Amino acid sequence: MNIANIGEFGLIRKIKKIVGKPKNNVFLGIGDDAAAVKVRSQKSEVRSKYMLLTTDTLVENVHFDLRYSKFYELGWKLMAINISDVAAMGGMPKYALVTLGLKKNMKEKDILDLYRGMKAIANKFGVSVIGGDIVSSPKTLFFTLDMIGDCAKPVKRSGARAGDMILAFEKFGGSSAGLKELKKFGRKKMSQNAKSHLMPVPMVKNGLKASKYATAMIDNSDGLARCLIEICAASKVGAEIFEADIPLAKGATLNDALDGGEDYNLVLTASPSKVKLLKGAKVIGRVTRGKKIVLISGDGRKKMMARKGFEHF
Amino acid sequence: MNIANIGEFGLIRKIKKIVGKPKNNVFLGIGDDAAAVKVRSQKSEVRSKYMLLTTDTLVENVHFDLRYSKFYELGWKLMAINISDVAAMGGMPKYALVTLGLKKNMKEKDILDLYRGMKAIANKFGVSVIGGDIVSSPKTLFFTLDMIGDCAKPVKRSGARAGDMILAFEKFGGSSAGLKELKKFGRKKMSQNAKSHLMPVPMVKNGLKASKYATAMIDNSDGLARCLIEICAASKVGAEIFEADIPLAKGATLNDALDGGEDYNLVLTASPSKVKLLKGAKVIGRVTRGKKIVLISGDGRKKMMARKGFEHF
Repeated sequence: MNIANIGEFGLIRKIKKIVGKPKNNVFLGIGDDAAAVKVRSQKSEVRSKYMLLTTDTLVENVHFDLRYSKFYELGWKLMAINISDVAAMGGMPKYALVTLGLKKNMKEKDILDLYRGMKAIANKFGVSVIGGDIVSSPKTLFFTLDMIGDCAKPVKRSGARAGDMILAFEKFGGSSAGLKELKKFGRKKMSQNAKSHLMPVPMVKNGLKASKYATAMIDNSDGLARCLIEICAASKVGAEIFEADIPLAKGATLNDALDGGEDYNLVLTASPSKVKLLKGAKVIGRVTRGKKIVLISGDGRKKMMARKGFEHF
Repeated sequence: MNIANIGEFGLIRKIKKIVGKPKNNVFLGIGDDAAAVKVRSQKSEVRSKYMLLTTDTLVENVHFDLRYSKFYELGWKLMAINISDVAAMGGMPKYALVTLGLKKNMKEKDILDLYRGMKAIANKFGVSVIGGDIVSSPKTLFFTLDMIGDCAKPVKRSGARAGDMILAFEKFGGSSAGLKELKKFGRKKMSQNAKSHLMPVPMVKNGLKASKYATAMIDNSDGLARCLIEICAASKVGAEIFEADIPLAKGATLNDALDGGEDYNLVLTASPSKVKLLKGAKVIGRVTRGKKIVLISGDGRKKMMARKGFEHF
């Protein structure tokens, strides 16, 4: 079997079987935005506390293109997408390890700019870069960041219940629309969407706020369709989404919103009674019994959502 | 300036300047085998406790060659070299995140074998694989592992003092000699050295034992010369090494020991009064004032060690 046939998510399922059930106070292993480890017992502390661990990688010509991405922006984005994973657990980011896979002919200035971009957003969110690794990678430039954060209680993907409302912070599709512009016009015409593609801003405050009430939460890295598929699969529920209620970024299409990804806003579920407490979040649908994810258009027609979101193979 | 000119260690110095002094209870940032974060205060606990964080990457045709490395062995090695970094701090490994940068045409079985190899050594050392990331990397296969461990008190590279003895656990040069054999004969003639190159065993117990007495410690990933250069630079001391006392693996040369690396044994310094407590470790030299690293041959002749160890560019 070739991995292109089984796909990323099939592969992860098989890996989980080999890896087995984790020990050592692991609260949450493979399969969420971040892993969570219990670091203080409830006996000695007022609130239990969890360490969050996550990692994300950017590979040249897969996740970025040096024709329109600057190194400062790549550093920013590498840090931002990892912070976003911690935000999606309701956590605060703390420490980062950075791995650089570098070609031989690279300019020192470019690498330092990468760190300057990382540092700029790290400062905003109180993150310290504390280590990493530099290796030679003659054919492919890549960057990996590992993020350690903490939280009072992780918001998993698996907690959504039939009857919950589905909410979203901020708009969808902007990053996807921005990427299309960059591919077409390069950096000449730099719209807000293009900027949000190159330098996304993760939603740590919203994640923290939502963590008090959310039954499930995920960050939108691979499109709204993938967010819903992940939450529904993990929670063993279905969903109805009201097409007209999906907040679209200016210039973005419904397809950008559903399949585009890289918006790094947050999608969450919460009991209807908590909706008014989630200020700034917009209701876009509701959690249903069963497994179906249904998109309801403005005129009431229903479409089954069979989209796979962005798979990496 | 091109990074090939400035080199890995020069680049790290410049990155450290940009990154700045870390906050958030960071005890040890960039520049040691692992970073260390204080997780419990001495007020509330009998012993202070530190979280250790480290990451290491294997890149195809840089760190491994699929003509003589099997995926099971690569998984083992990826896990082993990260455990070794934790061992070199006097710590216990706990959690791992794994990033796979995969080509499209890969076989599922190979990836699962990689995890089987990781799991085999993870089980020996009580490590749980709790997360990671899978990305497409069309031209270059790479694997990154991030390791989280803990310890009572990290043994830094910077604690060596003039007058300390330099000790080593286990033999040097075996991995380098084994790699030469693999390049020459492939897997036909599989010596102990070749096996130790493909599946090194990290020294967690020795590291833990040594951590009570060691003033500085490092794992031998890049050769004995590089170990001494790193400890001496961090501790602002020099060293005298007695050539005849360097324990060589059977079939290994002095050059294998000094420059080969990948033995993943431990090099440490300790006060002369502690030497007899460090059972199993062999004295190979002593720490001196000044900056010189001197190799003393059997007939008393002195050679300045100007070797750079293995640099990645």
